[in-house]
Amino acid sequence: MNNDGALERVRVVLTRTSHPGNIGAAARAMKTMGLSQLVLVSPQFFPDPVATARAAGADDILASARVVGSLSEALEGTVFAAALTARRREMAVPMKWAREAAADVVELAAHGDVALVFGNETKGLSNEDVALCHMPVRIPVSETYSSLNLGAAVQLLCYELRMAAIDPGRAPATEFEPATHEQIEGFYAHLDRAITASGFFNPENSKRLWPRLRRLFGRIRLEKDEINILRGMLSAFEKK
Amino acid sequence: MNNDGALERVRVVLTRTSHPGNIGAAARAMKTMGLSQLVLVSPQFFPDPVATARAAGADDILASARVVGSLSEALEGTVFAAALTARRREMAVPMKWAREAAADVVELAAHGDVALVFGNETKGLSNEDVALCHMPVRIPVSETYSSLNLGAAVQLLCYELRMAAIDPGRAPATEFEPATHEQIEGFYAHLDRAITASGFFNPENSKRLWPRLRRLFGRIRLEKDEINILRGMLSAFEKK
Repeated sequence: MNNDGALERVRVVLTRTSHPGNIGAAARAMKTMGLSQLVLVSPQFFPDPVATARAAGADDILASARVVGSLSEALEGTVFAAALTARRREMAVPMKWAREAAADVVELAAHGDVALVFGNETKGLSNEDVALCHMPVRIPVSETYSSLNLGAAVQLLCYELRMAAIDPGRAPATEFEPATHEQIEGFYAHLDRAITASGFFNPENSKRLWPRLRRLFGRIRLEKDEINILRGMLSAFEKK
Repeated sequence: MNNDGALERVRVVLTRTSHPGNIGAAARAMKTMGLSQLVLVSPQFFPDPVATARAAGADDILASARVVGSLSEALEGTVFAAALTARRREMAVPMKWAREAAADVVELAAHGDVALVFGNETKGLSNEDVALCHMPVRIPVSETYSSLNLGAAVQLLCYELRMAAIDPGRAPATEFEPATHEQIEGFYAHLDRAITASGFFNPENSKRLWPRLRRLFGRIRLEKDEINILRGMLSAFEKK
């Protein structure tokens, strides 16, 4: 799946944020992961130079952020809303872990705008706010210290959304050309000659040497150029 | 897999960090995910009140942080080191995405201490530093804006490590008891009587009503208490 468009339909909603630095950090976190819609419900300070400083190059996200007076207003026009909650709550709707939830959010974004709602730094979300959303979401933090920074929480959720929306694919292969079987065997034959001639290897006494050498070089997945380097070294030793 | 001990064997190594706030943010990020070993290679300012402030309750991580003069020193005693790099580099070792790399790091932590190495905020890691590590790691950021904050990068990697080490399991079920099949069918029968008696449902004309009602209530996965509430409502309507 490669569903980049889904990320554009995700609204990050920060409710009653106390520290403007966290608003800036959230904007930066969003932009690194390809999100752009920021909605602020009654922020304590906004706009604010601290928010702008922390946003770094993501100040365009702050400039286009919508400021509204209530979560209901922030959710207008959305088809789905997930709420990040730090604690287990007494509610009928079952909660999901961030990774699972991100997959759902991306899927639902096919139908329209979706929202990810974050609470205040110390108080979190009110029960009323959580009730306006369809899915409580949790990040699996340490049992002994669960104090995740707001900007960090936004970063983790946006990352999971990106991972759900965009298959990053296999890591790009190296530019280097792997050696062929023949080249590797050619190297082993050369090594065999060289270490036998040098007296290091004596077929009578050192039965376990070759399995070990093969295990060692086999793990490296040698490249063409490296075979040349190694054989060059061997040739040099042989001449001595 | 539930491998909490692996997280204790991961050293987070920050090299030549410019902003003490990022050291504090890294400490907090680590602690929320169950990591504790912080090593600082030639930090520009440390200790520093800004680091302590940003660490919030994770100041114990700062207090036990080791400050060293070189990456080699930081890696002493480790069996594996992964290096976070923002850009693709010309090197033989293939890079891995964060999620894949985290699985490897947790696996290798079974053999001893492992390190996750992060570079300077603007310059990243030097080629020499990357060469000291065994695996370049990347976070799949947006192509148009890849400026991930250092603290945020530490947070993401620590989160992936925790996810790799600790299966958070299925999200805990709600406390509420789901209704049984019989209770749900009992509700449907009651609803049928009520809407027929009210004149809302006429079996002759409204063939499509029941499939729709079943689809609607079926999606809710009704709970016992909710069945009681709904049937109470129906009984009240019937009496009118």
